[in-house]
Amino acid sequence: MAALAMGVDLGGTNARAAVVDRDTGEIVAVHKESHRERTPEAVVGVVAHVVRRSGKAAGLEPAAFGQVGVGVAGQCLGRTGVVLNAPNLGWRDVPFGELLQRELGVPIRIANDLSAAAWGERRFGAARGLDDVALVFVGSGVGCGLILGGRLHDGHRGVAGELGHVKVRPLRPDTSVRRCGCGEMGCLEAYASGMNIAARVREELSAGAVSLVRDAVQGDLDRVNATIVDAAYARQDPYARALWDEVADLLGNSIASLVTLLNPARVILGGGVILGCPELLGRLRQVFDAKVSRSAAMGLTFERAFLGDDAGVIGAALLD
Amino acid sequence: MAALAMGVDLGGTNARAAVVDRDTGEIVAVHKESHRERTPEAVVGVVAHVVRRSGKAAGLEPAAFGQVGVGVAGQCLGRTGVVLNAPNLGWRDVPFGELLQRELGVPIRIANDLSAAAWGERRFGAARGLDDVALVFVGSGVGCGLILGGRLHDGHRGVAGELGHVKVRPLRPDTSVRRCGCGEMGCLEAYASGMNIAARVREELSAGAVSLVRDAVQGDLDRVNATIVDAAYARQDPYARALWDEVADLLGNSIASLVTLLNPARVILGGGVILGCPELLGRLRQVFDAKVSRSAAMGLTFERAFLGDDAGVIGAALLD
Repeated sequence: MAALAMGVDLGGTNARAAVVDRDTGEIVAVHKESHRERTPEAVVGVVAHVVRRSGKAAGLEPAAFGQVGVGVAGQCLGRTGVVLNAPNLGWRDVPFGELLQRELGVPIRIANDLSAAAWGERRFGAARGLDDVALVFVGSGVGCGLILGGRLHDGHRGVAGELGHVKVRPLRPDTSVRRCGCGEMGCLEAYASGMNIAARVREELSAGAVSLVRDAVQGDLDRVNATIVDAAYARQDPYARALWDEVADLLGNSIASLVTLLNPARVILGGGVILGCPELLGRLRQVFDAKVSRSAAMGLTFERAFLGDDAGVIGAALLD
Repeated sequence: MAALAMGVDLGGTNARAAVVDRDTGEIVAVHKESHRERTPEAVVGVVAHVVRRSGKAAGLEPAAFGQVGVGVAGQCLGRTGVVLNAPNLGWRDVPFGELLQRELGVPIRIANDLSAAAWGERRFGAARGLDDVALVFVGSGVGCGLILGGRLHDGHRGVAGELGHVKVRPLRPDTSVRRCGCGEMGCLEAYASGMNIAARVREELSAGAVSLVRDAVQGDLDRVNATIVDAAYARQDPYARALWDEVADLLGNSIASLVTLLNPARVILGGGVILGCPELLGRLRQVFDAKVSRSAAMGLTFERAFLGDDAGVIGAALLD
């Protein structure tokens, strides 16, 4: 097996390819470009380009890597290479792996971006040496990557880890339930992701809610984000208190259920909403402690994601 | 490796040992006895006895099996052999594997009874040939056994699969939340197990609730069970309707969350409350369909447990 591997992180606005040292996890070369068009053909072109460019910087053709791993922000059918649903790209049922393979002439392995990140953290980050680990990400979206029994668990069809799409609200017609980017109703992500939190606060402030958040953004609702809500919570703002109690309850319960079901050794936390909002995280941990099964939580540790944005490309490069 | 293996199913009232053909899953010899005393020493004596008796029927000493696998109705620390919490046995932190090993002179491998049953179904039952399967059991208790990536997933400390101890109720002091046999509050099992359903119906009928269930048991509340509630539901009894709506909602949501998180190929259903209550099961399936993430449910099948009570001993015998 070659000493260097090629990984790609494909998001809604750009693609980043990195040449990774298999033994150390070090990024030897990297190239990133944004894709203006989001058609599969255009994106395949950009991904092929960043792969060739970063490979060239390391003196290698794509074929020399044996395989190119791609972490995609969306639901992926694992080894078939099909992207089922990637809201940020506007894709449904795109045979991305096949298209990219035809373009680059090298086998493609795709995975959800958080599965790739979890694998990166397992190999060279906050999960090193641990066989059972969950990476929980709360940023622009909400998701999870699972390492179980020392291997990436991506499930029967490759869509395991969809913590963000666990339903957290009853679907009775008489309740107002938020719709998720995935198209379904009542998903955790629809309540707890940074984008959805910001959208909700904007809606509620526009409808007249009173909060320090309005002062903090000086009336410019486009500037609302989770960090600002967190600061308002710290200043005892009742609106922020109620919102954070709700969001922390949903996230704390969901992580407690995951731990009770899977008994991991560690939960790794990543994403701006968890890592950038200390008040929310503190409240979430209280809910978690109250709700988790004692026996499943024995010996459990929480850690911050270690590799940051690099986890995805490193993990993608090293996928089996 | 010997062609025959030894497995034990240890419950709250009796122990059953079986000699199992590794190649066919057939039970070659079996012996079962009840344990009147539940002290670890007394139970170890009974387990050792049933192991010796069933071994003898197959013409073999315990040592000839190389290992004895035991499925225990309780939370077990996997390979350490410690039973953390087995309410039906009244045990906490019992080094059961060590005690039994000393008695029999052969390595002991313990696992939760539902993990053992899932492994039995995977080898010779309803999960044969599938790598990602969840066995969901709703009977006297509520539990789950997970086969992930073709292997038993028992987690970091061996207590994975505790679906019955996922918390399904808020823990606010102002709500009346049911206490589970595990000692914690608001567990799924406290609402959905056969024992807890019967206890609740008895309480509510004693407190004056009006239901066909009362007529069905001719006023003898000791005879209340989930099957009788199911029959009352079929006859449009409003009390049974409301109760089953609540229980089906909790179970359907929990299984939907599990499937969304783990993307199994199959969910195997076992236990008298699910298999003996067709109305409850139908309602549960409706809730499941409404709540599961579409992509995780693609290609998913539901099956009834195939090996019945034998799954546990077969699986225990064949544990790695």
